[in-house]
Amino acid sequence: MTPVTNGRLLFNAYPDGLPQPGKATRYDGSQTIDPDTVPLNGGFLIKTLVLSIDPFIVAKMRPKTPGASLLAYTIGEPIEDYGVGVVLRSENPAIKAGDHVYGVQGGAYPFAEYVIANDATQYRVLEKKDKLHWSVYVGILGMPGQTAYCGWKEFSKAKKGDVVFVSGGAGPVGSLVIQLAKMDGCKVIASAGSNEKVAFMKKIGADVPFNYKTENTADILKKEGGIDIYWDNVGGTTLEAALDSAKLGAKFIECGMISAFTSDPLGGTRNLFTIIPKQITMNGLSVSLLIPKYEEEFYRVVSDLIASGKIQYGEEVIPSLELGGEALLAVLTGTNKAKVVIEVAKE
Amino acid sequence: MTPVTNGRLLFNAYPDGLPQPGKATRYDGSQTIDPDTVPLNGGFLIKTLVLSIDPFIVAKMRPKTPGASLLAYTIGEPIEDYGVGVVLRSENPAIKAGDHVYGVQGGAYPFAEYVIANDATQYRVLEKKDKLHWSVYVGILGMPGQTAYCGWKEFSKAKKGDVVFVSGGAGPVGSLVIQLAKMDGCKVIASAGSNEKVAFMKKIGADVPFNYKTENTADILKKEGGIDIYWDNVGGTTLEAALDSAKLGAKFIECGMISAFTSDPLGGTRNLFTIIPKQITMNGLSVSLLIPKYEEEFYRVVSDLIASGKIQYGEEVIPSLELGGEALLAVLTGTNKAKVVIEVAKE
Repeated sequence: MTPVTNGRLLFNAYPDGLPQPGKATRYDGSQTIDPDTVPLNGGFLIKTLVLSIDPFIVAKMRPKTPGASLLAYTIGEPIEDYGVGVVLRSENPAIKAGDHVYGVQGGAYPFAEYVIANDATQYRVLEKKDKLHWSVYVGILGMPGQTAYCGWKEFSKAKKGDVVFVSGGAGPVGSLVIQLAKMDGCKVIASAGSNEKVAFMKKIGADVPFNYKTENTADILKKEGGIDIYWDNVGGTTLEAALDSAKLGAKFIECGMISAFTSDPLGGTRNLFTIIPKQITMNGLSVSLLIPKYEEEFYRVVSDLIASGKIQYGEEVIPSLELGGEALLAVLTGTNKAKVVIEVAKE
Repeated sequence: MTPVTNGRLLFNAYPDGLPQPGKATRYDGSQTIDPDTVPLNGGFLIKTLVLSIDPFIVAKMRPKTPGASLLAYTIGEPIEDYGVGVVLRSENPAIKAGDHVYGVQGGAYPFAEYVIANDATQYRVLEKKDKLHWSVYVGILGMPGQTAYCGWKEFSKAKKGDVVFVSGGAGPVGSLVIQLAKMDGCKVIASAGSNEKVAFMKKIGADVPFNYKTENTADILKKEGGIDIYWDNVGGTTLEAALDSAKLGAKFIECGMISAFTSDPLGGTRNLFTIIPKQITMNGLSVSLLIPKYEEEFYRVVSDLIASGKIQYGEEVIPSLELGGEALLAVLTGTNKAKVVIEVAKE
């Protein structure tokens, strides 16, 4: 009966370099909504609980291009990623009040405290496992976890004893890759950008965790005798070092190239030629294309592994949507501690 | 009984940029050999008939690096590629005088009029098909043809109606790829660097042959609506244009990046990131790794296709080993007309 604030994190301007809070993004508290009476027109009203901050956000901060694979944000509208919320009211028979939903496919859940949705196929109704916070469902049980799981199963062709290198190994994708690789009997080299992250990678099983800011990636890979599988979350000179250290027939899984956003975006991969004499297979990984094949298996297998403690995860909870811009910057520059989620509301 | 000249094309110095004849390579006519009496020590003496000029030659003109996938040449010794010769004498039971042999595995047949060999496993005794000149066995029936055949069969996963782009389409590899793609029911876009080459690509079936020097590759690919398969012989900006025009799930077969030798070698692939959202699979193709799987099938199938005229090929015969340095430069800069072979001797 009483309108409440519907806080939103808006896309404010195309970034020049890194997306600075207050410039590229802007928190807006001017919109109000009455959850009890707002018309749903056959849809459903979601109260947002948690939102994910993932690097792909910055790739959508650009002018709209016809045919582009990632939809660009609209200036003045909320940025989008994945989120979990609780349904307050529903006029859609597939969704009922009290349901917890994960969405939106393609990472289009708007950064707003309240969301009116109408396409139930864009959301998954979650079954909550005991003891797991909803934030887990945008992390290791959400898109990042699916990325790791689907990509590893589809492309790694891992054999026992393979040497695997994971960059960004402390992140939500990389940390699951490390654990899946260990389960397959591989030796795992893993890099991250702080000693705290290195300690986390060691804890979850990495054999050779290292801080790429204080150690030389190429030297480490050389010392370990080359790699059979490279899981790339960063691109740039790390990818070049991996190409130089790849063994014959190596598999490269290209999951992210975050350095393209934080380093010189004009710098290309200078030794891509290496894939020819070494007959390397390089697979670009777009999780949305693999989810139909792996979704049910993923939720079944990984939920159990997490609930039983066989797989561990890290999480850094940001307590307010107003801090979303700072959280994005931290993820892009690596000053975050672990997978960043925004707790928008408690239940 | 009488010694004869054993003309050789020597590796003379590391090239600074393109390998200039007389500098990077040098013809030497000072060595003599007596074919009737030269000691074989259990080996066999080959009189060279034809030699192949392939772009990989320039990649071997560098200091020796331990563990490198391509063996570097030795300064003062002949450069090497593939060749066909006739055996004059043999002390090896696996090879007999009069045999025509193709070798050496890995492209290590020395550029010399006479060669004493001892490892029969490095040579294939050829059965000559009617009407085919021996030069064909270093071209479409040699390493370049094997590269096209093995790579296409192993990596293209071609479906009827797929749009295929072949760069370097008039060369010995590209021209067979065009014809294999047409046999699989694909639409073929193909680029080369002269109108004469464009006419040849049209003759062998390319649907959209074009001269990349007078037309813009990116524009052509865009106009044709994107590509499902890219066969890359050149790398550089052509690869970048192909990435930009690739459809979701496209296959990239990386066969050569000749532009790395002729353009700025420090320029990298700037839009490799594209392989992630488009989930592109990129396969480096090193034919020597695939030959064990396809060799017998290749000789059986492709010999018949050539003999029956169902597959066509182009050839530019250089009449003397002394012109080998110029021939290499022509291949690297694209001023050759078709597959370059050196006719060292007639039978």
